[in-house]
Amino acid sequence: MNDPHPDPMRPGELSQLADAVRAFSEERDWAKFHDPKSLALAVVSEAGQLAELFRWIPADEAAAAFSHGERNLRAGEEIADVLIFLVRLADVLEIDLPHAVNTNFATTSARFPPSRVQGKAPNSA
Amino acid sequence: MNDPHPDPMRPGELSQLADAVRAFSEERDWAKFHDPKSLALAVVSEAGQLAELFRWIPADEAAAAFSHGERNLRAGEEIADVLIFLVRLADVLEIDLPHAVNTNFATTSARFPPSRVQGKAPNSA
Amino acid sequence: MNDPHPDPMRPGELSQLADAVRAFSEERDWAKFHDPKSLALAVVSEAGQLAELFRWIPADEAAAAFSHGERNLRAGEEIADVLIFLVRLADVLEIDLPHAVNTNFATTSARFPPSRVQGKAPNSA
Amino acid sequence: MNDPHPDPMRPGELSQLADAVRAFSEERDWAKFHDPKSLALAVVSEAGQLAELFRWIPADEAAAAFSHGERNLRAGEEIADVLIFLVRLADVLEIDLPHAVNTNFATTSARFPPSRVQGKAPNSA
Repeated sequence: MNDPHPDPMRPGELSQLADAVRAFSEERDWAKFHDPKSLALAVVSEAGQLAELFRWIPADEAAAAFSHGERNLRAGEEIADVLIFLVRLADVLEIDLPHAVNTNFATTSARFPPSRVQGKAPNSA
Repeated sequence: MNDPHPDPMRPGELSQLADAVRAFSEERDWAKFHDPKSLALAVVSEAGQLAELFRWIPADEAAAAFSHGERNLRAGEEIADVLIFLVRLADVLEIDLPHAVNTNFATTSARFPPSRVQGKAPNSA
Repeated sequence: MNDPHPDPMRPGELSQLADAVRAFSEERDWAKFHDPKSLALAVVSEAGQLAELFRWIPADEAAAAFSHGERNLRAGEEIADVLIFLVRLADVLEIDLPHAVNTNFATTSARFPPSRVQGKAPNSA
Repeated sequence: MNDPHPDPMRPGELSQLADAVRAFSEERDWAKFHDPKSLALAVVSEAGQLAELFRWIPADEAAAAFSHGERNLRAGEEIADVLIFLVRLADVLEIDLPHAVNTNFATTSARFPPSRVQGKAPNSA
């Protein structure tokens, strides 16, 4: 039988980014700032800047407004900021990110069978 | 001259995850929920759950407390949740995530030369 | 001339809440957990739970869906959670919240004259 | 018997602020931007800016560093920003904020009896 959902993250994916951010931090003697609470604050503050981009755009115009040009670049910068701190936090906590994502994905896929949740928001009553 | 900082993300990295999340969404007819504002709310709500794990742990105990066992697993789950919605948002906005991260990393590296910022927090006065 | 915008917060407003949360914390010996970084993590984690309520609701249905019944109660609980930690953080930092809000409100009113920003989102290009 | 915990918020508290923010919004024709999802994004983006202030400050230095001077003012501005959007969201959802806070406070007080939780973080195992 073919597995319809192979692991979505390959082993070692993002490890080069984790290495680069670790080296970046150590070259600047910034590793001392990177305890988990500080990095969690960094993740949420960057996520807040991402949220800020969209807040006053009508919901049905946002995909078109941000799919090209200057706004697309800005969204890419903010998403990259969140990703970099997220990868740094996982690295500090010695989390195997591909393993965590693959486990999460398999669990979520099993928890929400397509036939049961078809077209219904996951947390709707 | 050797470049001391090669691109930290390889072309195509995370694209398999983006494909998997897109397929997951389409199989459940959930793509209709995934406009940018909704996905930004999902990113921040998952980032908030990540923040919640650490809030009452003393800052100097957090790395040790979360580097193994049940707490490490929980942190991995929350980080994975943020990452999955982040990748989904980038996909919906047609953002080339490795390109955005590599550009961001190069800009930040140039902006903070090690000799100038050594040991000082980036936003300190 | 009458001032069209008297101070929106009265002196001492929310001070009874700050007192109650401080007493609540001290009775449980929880004040030791309430350093600013921990409280900031609490604010964002509660804000994330608030965001979670709305994420999959179509934008143009959210006001009606949350203006009554069980969803209205849930939104009230989450807003109260954010407010309580926000007031606690202000108290720990010895911030005069009515003064901060009144100053903020006056500054923002002056910065965005109605005639200039009429109907345009504040951060639109 | 004296009730040791009278309601921490008085009826009508913050209603003047809600009125002022509503008037501010209507004068600028900005009420159309204030659907619940947009306001939730505003709350989290302001909460993220608050988190940003503290992220690289050592946890045990943050209270002193932010209890006076320029940093105290900045923290007050960010807390005020969160509070204003929180009050606006409650107003749009027709939530009675003092009632929601008082109910929340009574429930939490009953849920965590001082004798049982003395000195222990609420979510610790």
